[in-house]
Amino acid sequence: MTVDTIREGEWVLLYYDERKSYVVRVERGKVFHTTHGSIDLSTLIGLPYGATVETNVGEKLIVSRTRFVDRLEGLQRVTQVIYPKDLGYILLEAGVGPGSRVVEAGTGTGFLAATLAWYVRPSGRVYTYEVRRDFYEIALKNFEVLGVLPYITPRNKDIRDGIEENDLDAVVLDMPSPWEVVEEAASKLLNGGTLIAFVPTTSQVERTLHSLKKTGLRMVEVTEIMMRKYQPKPGELRPQSLGVTHTGYIISSRKL
Amino acid sequence: MTVDTIREGEWVLLYYDERKSYVVRVERGKVFHTTHGSIDLSTLIGLPYGATVETNVGEKLIVSRTRFVDRLEGLQRVTQVIYPKDLGYILLEAGVGPGSRVVEAGTGTGFLAATLAWYVRPSGRVYTYEVRRDFYEIALKNFEVLGVLPYITPRNKDIRDGIEENDLDAVVLDMPSPWEVVEEAASKLLNGGTLIAFVPTTSQVERTLHSLKKTGLRMVEVTEIMMRKYQPKPGELRPQSLGVTHTGYIISSRKL
Amino acid sequence: MTVDTIREGEWVLLYYDERKSYVVRVERGKVFHTTHGSIDLSTLIGLPYGATVETNVGEKLIVSRTRFVDRLEGLQRVTQVIYPKDLGYILLEAGVGPGSRVVEAGTGTGFLAATLAWYVRPSGRVYTYEVRRDFYEIALKNFEVLGVLPYITPRNKDIRDGIEENDLDAVVLDMPSPWEVVEEAASKLLNGGTLIAFVPTTSQVERTLHSLKKTGLRMVEVTEIMMRKYQPKPGELRPQSLGVTHTGYIISSRKL
Amino acid sequence: MTVDTIREGEWVLLYYDERKSYVVRVERGKVFHTTHGSIDLSTLIGLPYGATVETNVGEKLIVSRTRFVDRLEGLQRVTQVIYPKDLGYILLEAGVGPGSRVVEAGTGTGFLAATLAWYVRPSGRVYTYEVRRDFYEIALKNFEVLGVLPYITPRNKDIRDGIEENDLDAVVLDMPSPWEVVEEAASKLLNGGTLIAFVPTTSQVERTLHSLKKTGLRMVEVTEIMMRKYQPKPGELRPQSLGVTHTGYIISSRKL
Repeated sequence: MTVDTIREGEWVLLYYDERKSYVVRVERGKVFHTTHGSIDLSTLIGLPYGATVETNVGEKLIVSRTRFVDRLEGLQRVTQVIYPKDLGYILLEAGVGPGSRVVEAGTGTGFLAATLAWYVRPSGRVYTYEVRRDFYEIALKNFEVLGVLPYITPRNKDIRDGIEENDLDAVVLDMPSPWEVVEEAASKLLNGGTLIAFVPTTSQVERTLHSLKKTGLRMVEVTEIMMRKYQPKPGELRPQSLGVTHTGYIISSRKL
Repeated sequence: MTVDTIREGEWVLLYYDERKSYVVRVERGKVFHTTHGSIDLSTLIGLPYGATVETNVGEKLIVSRTRFVDRLEGLQRVTQVIYPKDLGYILLEAGVGPGSRVVEAGTGTGFLAATLAWYVRPSGRVYTYEVRRDFYEIALKNFEVLGVLPYITPRNKDIRDGIEENDLDAVVLDMPSPWEVVEEAASKLLNGGTLIAFVPTTSQVERTLHSLKKTGLRMVEVTEIMMRKYQPKPGELRPQSLGVTHTGYIISSRKL
Repeated sequence: MTVDTIREGEWVLLYYDERKSYVVRVERGKVFHTTHGSIDLSTLIGLPYGATVETNVGEKLIVSRTRFVDRLEGLQRVTQVIYPKDLGYILLEAGVGPGSRVVEAGTGTGFLAATLAWYVRPSGRVYTYEVRRDFYEIALKNFEVLGVLPYITPRNKDIRDGIEENDLDAVVLDMPSPWEVVEEAASKLLNGGTLIAFVPTTSQVERTLHSLKKTGLRMVEVTEIMMRKYQPKPGELRPQSLGVTHTGYIISSRKL
Repeated sequence: MTVDTIREGEWVLLYYDERKSYVVRVERGKVFHTTHGSIDLSTLIGLPYGATVETNVGEKLIVSRTRFVDRLEGLQRVTQVIYPKDLGYILLEAGVGPGSRVVEAGTGTGFLAATLAWYVRPSGRVYTYEVRRDFYEIALKNFEVLGVLPYITPRNKDIRDGIEENDLDAVVLDMPSPWEVVEEAASKLLNGGTLIAFVPTTSQVERTLHSLKKTGLRMVEVTEIMMRKYQPKPGELRPQSLGVTHTGYIISSRKL
């Protein structure tokens, strides 16, 4: 079994207990503060993954490798983000995988573009549009620390002014008025390509459906993904009392 | 805009209307029968994607490129299969993407292994275990026609007799008794690696939770993904009256 | 423990097994046909409840007393009916109980009016409006065989032409265009009274919300009740794979 | 249209806006404190329902009549309470209505017993068992202020020591170990009577199912009622982001 050591620039998960863990990028000279004390991240460099470290108040943390979704958790957020339940469904429904060419808008915090980019690696590409300069810059930073920037072309541009790319496998719209982009998106999709819109209200679904119909897109589907977490206690299994009951409606359609 | 032509061995989607379409692999000399008449698949070869063809009774079908999930629909099934809502969530939760090394069991029809394989391309690998010879052979055929066989090592073997691989990013168990494999799987995971079990009943969740606890796996989560499709008719948007209300519980845990 | 005997005109439940039972009203001289053979209902008269009888092909059925919801199941249906999950919620949300005065429309098959009537007994009253003569007559018959007619005033009239009653505790609208009745209903409700609308599409919800706002009704709520049945097998508890995923949205508001 | 005036001892709803309202019982000499100022409840006596009053800081409140579920909201709580979504379903599923004889345990805060009592009025009766003296006394007080005490026989007794009543239409168990009462309950139910158990975990469902099977109860059903509230804003209709995702499983069975 291989044992890797922690290097600068890598992400680590600091596990305290089943209720609390933290995700952070290891930077030399940076101190990370938790509710269980602080830790100098420089001291992690060179340790084997799986090591146990102590905070300045003597609390123990296990240092673990991260998954992609863990690293998303560690990012700076500026907009409402999409959850894994929706990200995963969108990925399959959009037909996006290694090698795909995808346009996405608006970039926002960059969760969706980053996820798409992680999955089109190494030969695919994600083109993401964001009209606001401040969001664009935060997303750029996020793409960089996640290591997905080589697979992304970020554009600080309003997608309603036109899509620059052609021969797309998919266009994914996470913006307030996807209906303003439907016709343009359809013209840039490959045959069989998928247009996805993700919106929170039923009025937005209605307007998008009208626009899809007018543009001649087919195989239209509106889907809602609901997730329920359970209390994972052996002998006392039960759904959690409170949870996320809505994020958005996923509207899918195809250019045939 | 690129226009590709249909070649032998490719999958196509034959679209009739919003309610009915078909997915089939183009084979020379094969006749495909639909409820709207039959079509000689040889005649599709060389046509541009997006062409309209006619069945022997004069019904029109649009011939379209397929997405990966479309092609899954076109496969022969021998076991209960996993839906995209669960596949997508498992993918992200397992941290599986291009380059990942994953063990999966039981293979069954091969939907889960094939999906994992499609996403670990081109540098990752999926090792899938199936004890039944007949299932193993059907899955092998399915992997081949989907084009994912180069990324899969299929094993006609009971996973309870041991996992041959090491340094795994994830182990995904879609089998009746995942608790019998938990300890072995944990020993073969990399630090931070994920163990996923997918089971239909609450008793199976309970037994798996006991086993995870005993083995020392952490960050245990039990999740259920529910999907609701809507009638996508502009002006009459409403959830469908009947739908899938359960497939399985997704149990996730990490080796820290 | 009291043992009652079966009398003519009563409803009985004929239990075959956990998957199949029948509900029928005992009428002298009537033969009831089941998939497990037929039974002359006259022979049930005078038997104690809980007795076991045999069909003409020797299959055994237990004869049991019925609940109100069982009897609803035994009625002739002409329209989409409301399920117990929604009926129960509407009952509490409308504040309807013994002694309440309620207007309901459209009558349709009569499930909703009958349920409200059963619960306002003995001193309350339900006024139900139905524009179609054929539905009105079927509902009348249903009210009679359920024994709730003494508590109902059925009106063969379009509720959009006006509500004849005053001082109402609640108005419950199960009709395609509740927004056309909102203002009139509001004028006939007591202070604190509840207006409920039950509609299947989001557009109908939108139009009703606009109308409620314009009319000045308060405490507006839109609620959806989802039900999931489980396979009740000890050791194999799991939600049923397929189920009802939508019936309607319940819009509630108050006249303050 | 009748206009009633507010009397001492009645419950009123004090409406501030669509997000905030209060429910309180009018008592002479009592001052009620809200986040929008306080109000001397004596000043409400004699006012017509629907009047607008001012708090000591000049905020306006509309004084409205209450529904039964509003009054439940105004009660002192000592235990986890049941929501209207479950109360309504249990009511219909238990076949409880005007005239029914019902046993309930454990009393707890008294929400369930009070609701059952409100619906069995005027000729039915609810017998409720509570082993803890302190809960029993709080429930007693709650029954009194709700005006349902005349229809309830509260028993400060462990229901596992026996049910004193016979010829019951329904037994409703909202307690940690319903399986300990199943056999006794079955012996006291009328033919066709319903036994309901309401439990939060899947293990409790399993144990109850085993016990129902052993005791010979039939028509066993396990049901979960999920509720989703929508943001009722015209033009921006959408499900609320967070909500109640679980309260309990409803197990229903019949004595045939």
